[in-house]
Amino acid sequence: MDKPFNFEIIHQSKKSRARVGRIHTPHGIIDTPAFVAVGTNAAIKAVDSKVLDDLDLQLMFCNTYHLMIQPGTSCIRQAGGLHSFMNRTKPIITDSGGFQVFSLAYGSVYDELKSRGTKKYDNAIIRTNEEGVLFRSYRDGSPIMLTPESSVIAQKDLGADIIIPLDELPPYHIDHDALKKSLERTHRWEERSLAEHQRNPQQQAMYAVIHGGIAPDLRKQSAAYLTALPFDGFAIGGSLGKEHQQMYSMLFGLMPHMPDHAPRHLLGIGDLKTIEPIITLGIDTFDSSYPTRCARHGLIFTHTGPHKITQAVNKERLTPLEPGCTCYTCTHYTAAYLHHLFKAHELAGYTLATIHNLHFMGQLTQKYRDLILQEVI
Amino acid sequence: MDKPFNFEIIHQSKKSRARVGRIHTPHGIIDTPAFVAVGTNAAIKAVDSKVLDDLDLQLMFCNTYHLMIQPGTSCIRQAGGLHSFMNRTKPIITDSGGFQVFSLAYGSVYDELKSRGTKKYDNAIIRTNEEGVLFRSYRDGSPIMLTPESSVIAQKDLGADIIIPLDELPPYHIDHDALKKSLERTHRWEERSLAEHQRNPQQQAMYAVIHGGIAPDLRKQSAAYLTALPFDGFAIGGSLGKEHQQMYSMLFGLMPHMPDHAPRHLLGIGDLKTIEPIITLGIDTFDSSYPTRCARHGLIFTHTGPHKITQAVNKERLTPLEPGCTCYTCTHYTAAYLHHLFKAHELAGYTLATIHNLHFMGQLTQKYRDLILQEVI
Repeated sequence: MDKPFNFEIIHQSKKSRARVGRIHTPHGIIDTPAFVAVGTNAAIKAVDSKVLDDLDLQLMFCNTYHLMIQPGTSCIRQAGGLHSFMNRTKPIITDSGGFQVFSLAYGSVYDELKSRGTKKYDNAIIRTNEEGVLFRSYRDGSPIMLTPESSVIAQKDLGADIIIPLDELPPYHIDHDALKKSLERTHRWEERSLAEHQRNPQQQAMYAVIHGGIAPDLRKQSAAYLTALPFDGFAIGGSLGKEHQQMYSMLFGLMPHMPDHAPRHLLGIGDLKTIEPIITLGIDTFDSSYPTRCARHGLIFTHTGPHKITQAVNKERLTPLEPGCTCYTCTHYTAAYLHHLFKAHELAGYTLATIHNLHFMGQLTQKYRDLILQEVI
Repeated sequence: MDKPFNFEIIHQSKKSRARVGRIHTPHGIIDTPAFVAVGTNAAIKAVDSKVLDDLDLQLMFCNTYHLMIQPGTSCIRQAGGLHSFMNRTKPIITDSGGFQVFSLAYGSVYDELKSRGTKKYDNAIIRTNEEGVLFRSYRDGSPIMLTPESSVIAQKDLGADIIIPLDELPPYHIDHDALKKSLERTHRWEERSLAEHQRNPQQQAMYAVIHGGIAPDLRKQSAAYLTALPFDGFAIGGSLGKEHQQMYSMLFGLMPHMPDHAPRHLLGIGDLKTIEPIITLGIDTFDSSYPTRCARHGLIFTHTGPHKITQAVNKERLTPLEPGCTCYTCTHYTAAYLHHLFKAHELAGYTLATIHNLHFMGQLTQKYRDLILQEVI
């Protein structure tokens, strides 16, 4: 590979838009479709980097917003970048920080859908204008200006393999005209981000973020605008609808307008039932904190669905969480022991459940890669 | 070794009562002097059993009281005992449950010293009589009877290599006569415990617990009484005084009355400054949750003393917690990264700090074994 970043399609399904691919990065290969684990603070919760490296997950997602505030991106630059800071050898992707800034203003996507656009923290965003967004730090209330350029510079400090341009996250409850105006500003922000990135590529790849909510014309407009620019890949962001069916419809309409040759990332989606549909719709990578958050709540992933470890049935179950599972947790401990750790609120329980769920996600996406290669899906 | 439990003295210092020894158990050797890590709920907090097995700590302490209540000792018996339940290959010691029952009644030793004997939970102990102690479960308030026999039976279920007879833990603020009465009851309880143990030894060893508070005559009386019985080793329990100096004086007076051929365990002591004095006074093993509790509070053990990882000086310190340390944490991560994990409240920080502190304790006791062999102490 002469380019530091490269996407290779191994097999295109004839049955669906699903494909098996390989993303080459300076820190190694990502076999796609792939689940991307979220380690907001440069750490997967309850699991250290070395343990994560040993799992079958090749890409990790870190959040620029959190890292800007703690420990600060210049601190990470001085440590030699995120890989060196957290001792990770495999690829990393960072976001722009925009999603968190706007989520804090509107609450989480879920909260926002329920609250019909009411702002959660009235003062989190001080103002948004063409230059960027001025917001208050959640730690000490100090004002922070995030612009397309400052987000890229922060992500240069972090040094992830894949970076993301700043976008505006409009609320779900927004009229079409306002959404269109937001989209056009997002496009200008992404173009400025790309220009800033190209001044100093640093062997990083940049994915655009396609917006447009659930409006088919705006998604199409966004794809047309952004795929004409030399981005290395394309993420799908913004509102993905109230229910998964709306997201599937949106993806179904959008995908024919996406270039085949570039990787496609779906932002913030990774619950078990959604994985097969989004893969068949042509998504290559997708990130979610769902598997790790579930683990800390004792929700264990199995091939028959998530299973609550604190259920009494596990109290004397002297078999692994999932028979035949080859993860560290299942090869060393029984369901009865995990049940006990959760009942006793022992931190080791969170670690062991997280390892299992992440391993499960790795195995699941491996299974989908096989099914695509075998033309089953 | 024809006996499942055996204590071998490798070297007796000529400078002090310190000795290097080797305790042989059905689950392997414990090189002494040794620090014993506390895993109350059959788990070291924030570290799983496999990680602990890889550390230089050969003996682990579990608390019968907690395990009786969650998950119940019969549940652990069905899993094949503690070793199998938690997947530990190395030796385990359990206590009788008495300490926790009486601590709950009087608060922790520290609280009790400050509160001059005021009971913390008025209703935790329903009654104590010759038969045993009736107390309420901290989980659901249900009454539980703990007798010398029931404690031994519970510890047979748990199957630790070393078990401990039920004792009464009198408060520090008690007059000499009351302490003497309590001591005599404790002796009768320990004798009943030994009889129950001998009915079904199950390859376990039983250590007596020598009591007598800080009264030299009672400690001497306790040693005389208990060392005349066929216990496999001798723990030192009860009140160890208000200040360490009182404990050192007590140990200095007590040790000449202890048999040389049996291992001596000091219950609940393990802070850094105390280790050298107690080793030179002739203690072979000592348990404490202090190193792991410190770790979770970000207090890192180093050869120049405990160091608070959240101090600003660590923010950009790109070297290990302790230069030259060979632990998993120090060979993989920097002080700057640990500082960040603690600032960001990431669970992995607790795990990594715990591994470091436990490894430190293993290295420290190895150092003392070397110093004894070299006749330095």
